[in-house]
Amino acid sequence: MNLLPNWLSQRAKVTPNRVAVDLAAESITFLQLHKRVVKRAFQLASYGIKKGHTVAIYMKNRIEYIELIHALAYIGAKALLLNTRLKQQEIQYQCSDAKANFLVVDESYEETILLSGTELIQLQDLIYRHEKEIVLQSQYDLNDTYTIMYTSGTTGNPKGVMQSYGNHWWSATGSSLNLGLQTNDCWLVAVPLFHISGFSILMRNVIYGMRIVLHSKFEAIQANAAIETKGVTIMSVVTSMLTQMLKELGGRKYPESFRCMLAGGGPVPRVLLDDCIEKGIPVYQTYGMTETSSQFVTLAPEDSIQKLGSAGKPLMPCQLKIVNANGEEVMNGIEGEIAVKGPNVTSGYLNKPEETDKAIKNGWFYTGDIGKLDEDGFLYVLDRRSDLIISGGENIYPAEIESTLLKHPLIAEAGVTGLPHKQWGQVPAAFLVVTSPIKKEELQAYCQSMLANYKVPKYYFIVDDLPRTASNKIIRRKLPQRIEQGRQL
Amino acid sequence: MNLLPNWLSQRAKVTPNRVAVDLAAESITFLQLHKRVVKRAFQLASYGIKKGHTVAIYMKNRIEYIELIHALAYIGAKALLLNTRLKQQEIQYQCSDAKANFLVVDESYEETILLSGTELIQLQDLIYRHEKEIVLQSQYDLNDTYTIMYTSGTTGNPKGVMQSYGNHWWSATGSSLNLGLQTNDCWLVAVPLFHISGFSILMRNVIYGMRIVLHSKFEAIQANAAIETKGVTIMSVVTSMLTQMLKELGGRKYPESFRCMLAGGGPVPRVLLDDCIEKGIPVYQTYGMTETSSQFVTLAPEDSIQKLGSAGKPLMPCQLKIVNANGEEVMNGIEGEIAVKGPNVTSGYLNKPEETDKAIKNGWFYTGDIGKLDEDGFLYVLDRRSDLIISGGENIYPAEIESTLLKHPLIAEAGVTGLPHKQWGQVPAAFLVVTSPIKKEELQAYCQSMLANYKVPKYYFIVDDLPRTASNKIIRRKLPQRIEQGRQL
Repeated sequence: MNLLPNWLSQRAKVTPNRVAVDLAAESITFLQLHKRVVKRAFQLASYGIKKGHTVAIYMKNRIEYIELIHALAYIGAKALLLNTRLKQQEIQYQCSDAKANFLVVDESYEETILLSGTELIQLQDLIYRHEKEIVLQSQYDLNDTYTIMYTSGTTGNPKGVMQSYGNHWWSATGSSLNLGLQTNDCWLVAVPLFHISGFSILMRNVIYGMRIVLHSKFEAIQANAAIETKGVTIMSVVTSMLTQMLKELGGRKYPESFRCMLAGGGPVPRVLLDDCIEKGIPVYQTYGMTETSSQFVTLAPEDSIQKLGSAGKPLMPCQLKIVNANGEEVMNGIEGEIAVKGPNVTSGYLNKPEETDKAIKNGWFYTGDIGKLDEDGFLYVLDRRSDLIISGGENIYPAEIESTLLKHPLIAEAGVTGLPHKQWGQVPAAFLVVTSPIKKEELQAYCQSMLANYKVPKYYFIVDDLPRTASNKIIRRKLPQRIEQGRQL
Repeated sequence: MNLLPNWLSQRAKVTPNRVAVDLAAESITFLQLHKRVVKRAFQLASYGIKKGHTVAIYMKNRIEYIELIHALAYIGAKALLLNTRLKQQEIQYQCSDAKANFLVVDESYEETILLSGTELIQLQDLIYRHEKEIVLQSQYDLNDTYTIMYTSGTTGNPKGVMQSYGNHWWSATGSSLNLGLQTNDCWLVAVPLFHISGFSILMRNVIYGMRIVLHSKFEAIQANAAIETKGVTIMSVVTSMLTQMLKELGGRKYPESFRCMLAGGGPVPRVLLDDCIEKGIPVYQTYGMTETSSQFVTLAPEDSIQKLGSAGKPLMPCQLKIVNANGEEVMNGIEGEIAVKGPNVTSGYLNKPEETDKAIKNGWFYTGDIGKLDEDGFLYVLDRRSDLIISGGENIYPAEIESTLLKHPLIAEAGVTGLPHKQWGQVPAAFLVVTSPIKKEELQAYCQSMLANYKVPKYYFIVDDLPRTASNKIIRRKLPQRIEQGRQL
């Protein structure tokens, strides 16, 4: 029961002439996509990439990204998806931790230092590469790992989340059982493909046989144009994207065929919801994470006002419970840790059995997020795990920034938390105890050399000490209280 | 990855207020259905029915059938679904072969002899039975057997096909990826629930959260009324049902919201298709069997004329190949045995490891049916192997002759089988239901114009009706019994 035909090759057989991907300049059918992917697979093979290898990808949204993803499945290799905002040190860490054999990059890759143990392939070289014919994998074992995406937990270094073919299948079908699936459906991809939010659309693309429109990056004006003129019916967004789109939309309305804004990254604020209702835009709010291979809980538009702030109810294959500190399930109305279970949940963290055992017990994944269920079973997420900061749809983990700051010779203590921001929802702010005076420019330059830009703190406060628990752990939620007594750089 | 929450209990949580079942007199929501099912589970438990038991059901289509099916899942018991046309001896055989612990019957059960080893429960007794509270199974293991349906193969006694929770899940989701899934979808059940065609709709009901309309039996006038007034969007039919419905429909048309006639049990004749096209009725033809837990291959309406007589292409999770006598896959265009593979295919026959090993090799189920793929990958089912007529060394497939005969304007129904012949071993004989008198010479000239000589029937019998199964398939081996009552041309 765990073997499925390769989804792209099945689509090339079953619905060969349907449009798979719409780009600015061309439309590619499933059969055409299959043929391009086979060529890419043979080109990749000529570098020595083979079954069982791990291949990292550092590329912006582009058709070659899609081709590579499917080509790796045909080869039987795993894909390590790198955030294109990562800096050299972060790339090096992830490639080395995942034992990536190759790293494919496009021109957005500006680093020049060679990675040890990982061979670099330039996309421009790959495109004109000769082909080496190999036997293609015609089916998947659903338990096999397909993709690896890194995410940080409560402490320290990012961990590689293993996502299997089955995780992606179950996520896609679970979503379709919730949102429905129409013949004319078309999903706009304006979120990064290296995130599960974007990648999961590629999976729905081949599993549903559904057209997608691919944008290289999000631009409100282009996104609206795609909805208004390209037959887009569904789009994945985060709050900041939705805000920009509504502003650009002004007095116009979307066509009636547009049926779903799938909004992730935290609850949509009331004013924005009201604006959407006025314009007749159905917003489905979601809760999910890299470990659940996309959405796990969704809130239907009809419940969005009555259940304001809620993330909704689990998808069909998904179970959810709230547990107390002893791991016991609590009643509706009581706060606790959110634990989830389902075939779309990761089997664990790559090469980290201890971290895996800590997170997954008896098939339940403990998210670290705090939440409660109301009397009708609707989930409210009260606090993201490890004080997660969500900034313009990017997850930022304070622990990672803190550990970077602590490496600076003049910093004795560092605490990071999110502060509200009009455009991005939140931005990271650093609270520092220093051994000597230090300038903001110096700190920023230091952080920019070590961290992706979105992780670089926007504010720095010099304080006498940090709020801590009895066991000396930083209480990050209390950091904002130090703003007044601190000195902002 | 093999554990899912019980689908009904999940629906009662996620979409409690959606209508699950529409009956003539009432509408039942998923939450109400769940509550009724829990009561039934407790009532069944009071008879001593428990996890691991097998419970046979001999009942016509009715709400209690649906309740029992889900109640057995809550208990963790298997359901043996009996055809209500079976006679005492056949019931006894199936109950005994499946080691059924209990048999639940309604008033349509007229047999009085007690079964040995199987305890009889009258539905009327069950309904007023006291309850015994037990722990309900809150989740499924997809590998566990849920239902058992008997089917005859090419030879010998009927065999119990084991259908797991996973088989049903994959069948339902595979179907939705093909047909789509709309918020307003509603499936009319006018085929027997004891057949996979009817039972699979119950699974889609809870997996999709989709309303169904349940009819106790098929009546063209009621079926049309349900489509015209009850918001039915999809219906499962066989050819003879469709014929009757079109006749009853006369000059009327279905509402635009009606979007799918799912037609099983063999190709739909051209005249009928033409009629459907004229009336704007989309017909999806299918090929499937008990062993594949419903449809495996479907033909979309847009291909039905160009690919007349084809069963279409496999569902997304399904693989298909044509093999020769040596078990080797043959090229498109070549006839051979149809072999299928997929997570909706049975793991085998109950307590019959030898029969299972004969039918399933390397994950491929050998259907015993003969077919071919055309150059575009469309499947043509040529015949059931058991009905093969061999005449003078030539292979003749009755279905091919029947579909030719059905194209004749005066022929309403046609069945073909082999009759013994001194010279050729067998010759094809046709059994016909006609709309107006017709001459033998005319028929022969017609057939000769369409078929190779050896395929032209040597005998023609005009009959009142054809022997059919409960699911309306022609029983070709019983055709010779009609010789006496028929009129030979």
